[in-house]
Amino acid sequence: MATTDDDRRPKYQRIADSLREAIQSGDYGPGDRLPGENDLMTTHGVARMTARQALSVLRDEGVAEARKGAGVFVRAFRPIRRRSIERLARDQWGNGRSIWSADIENRALEVDRITVSEETAPDRISTVLNLTADETTCVRRRRFVLDGKPVLLATSYLPIPLVAGSAITQEDTGPGGTYARLAELGYEPVHFREEIRSRMPSKDEVAQLAMSAGTPVILICRTAYTDTGHPVEVNEMTLDAASYVLEYDFDANPRTTPTNG
Amino acid sequence: MATTDDDRRPKYQRIADSLREAIQSGDYGPGDRLPGENDLMTTHGVARMTARQALSVLRDEGVAEARKGAGVFVRAFRPIRRRSIERLARDQWGNGRSIWSADIENRALEVDRITVSEETAPDRISTVLNLTADETTCVRRRRFVLDGKPVLLATSYLPIPLVAGSAITQEDTGPGGTYARLAELGYEPVHFREEIRSRMPSKDEVAQLAMSAGTPVILICRTAYTDTGHPVEVNEMTLDAASYVLEYDFDANPRTTPTNG
Repeated sequence: MATTDDDRRPKYQRIADSLREAIQSGDYGPGDRLPGENDLMTTHGVARMTARQALSVLRDEGVAEARKGAGVFVRAFRPIRRRSIERLARDQWGNGRSIWSADIENRALEVDRITVSEETAPDRISTVLNLTADETTCVRRRRFVLDGKPVLLATSYLPIPLVAGSAITQEDTGPGGTYARLAELGYEPVHFREEIRSRMPSKDEVAQLAMSAGTPVILICRTAYTDTGHPVEVNEMTLDAASYVLEYDFDANPRTTPTNG
Repeated sequence: MATTDDDRRPKYQRIADSLREAIQSGDYGPGDRLPGENDLMTTHGVARMTARQALSVLRDEGVAEARKGAGVFVRAFRPIRRRSIERLARDQWGNGRSIWSADIENRALEVDRITVSEETAPDRISTVLNLTADETTCVRRRRFVLDGKPVLLATSYLPIPLVAGSAITQEDTGPGGTYARLAELGYEPVHFREEIRSRMPSKDEVAQLAMSAGTPVILICRTAYTDTGHPVEVNEMTLDAASYVLEYDFDANPRTTPTNG
């Protein structure tokens, strides 16, 4: 571990560190107002610019947020807990519940935008889905909102040869959603692969997810496979990282995982 | 929430955004040469300084890299693929291999810093490990380096009542590492929970992981449980998000997951 030479750190950094520690130890809870520039100037005997820099360090880290005219506040982190493995258990979508319902417990996650279209998929998707050059996909784009705040963009790709004529090509896929319809079509998804990355959002993602400054996105690419290892859906998700904790529970001796893809 | 007013964004920023989107959509692939300053001046009708600033935004984000005399290129993203579930299968650590070996295939991930100490754990850890107020933990802090670049910080907490006197309290834990020693002590870890978040790094994390500007960290908190649901280790990991893809493979009907924690 690097040891920090305290004496060499700039003053604004040391003030930011002490505030961060006070937040982490719970002296300031989510939503609490932090000391303002004037307070910090008095307490630490520093110039206004130094106090301002200290607070901007915490803002840049996403630990605190400024509210116009009111000061700087500890950002409330009340994340959605996304339990992938439990969430995708067949028992859940098999009896008509949305696969999203377990994520949010009592909080209302709603789709506020949806488009469904037939498109030639990008190469990376066609490759995973083993599509020939003339096979198109059903593309379902959705935005999910929690308490009025957009938190997730999801784009699903399903091969048209598999899903043509089914409710999957409609905005409303019916009870149990896409996976229940796939099961009815003889393509029950039983294996899943989720790949996770994180990066800063693009301008378009900042706008669509109404993201705060200094907040990354989490990318999840989920591929669903039948019991013969046939890939039937790729879902590319973009999550506001300030809104989510992902959880994976698993055993030391896993079952056979999909060999395909 | 910050919303972006397009017209107010400086021109170099808008050019950077359009190039970034072209990279993310695959118009420019890894290793491809991006348009140069002259190209951007012509295409966007801007001064050389504006074109240069646009390219430097992408360099600062780690999306692109300059090669002397040759131009600016899309940085190859050659991440470490971390397969949690496969990686923790007992077969692997059970016969003396490090749990890290599957991550990196032929690439050399090394521990370049390690400290082991006995400490009172922070409250969040003590709670998960069900420790009483007077029970301390063995704290193992490690930094992992790939090809000379630090990519991961890991801090493991293990209850002293469980591990006192074992090789777990030494820098070198011996063949198979901590989990093999826990098995010998009668605390074989068989269930795992991983919780994942992402945020911008602190200054200290930027320094320790030698991170590029505009790159978030991924946080993984892994708890290991015995077959009776007894938590035996919490490992808090901080990953350079530019260096990692996390992968989780699982089935629609998962096995029983730990009920504890």
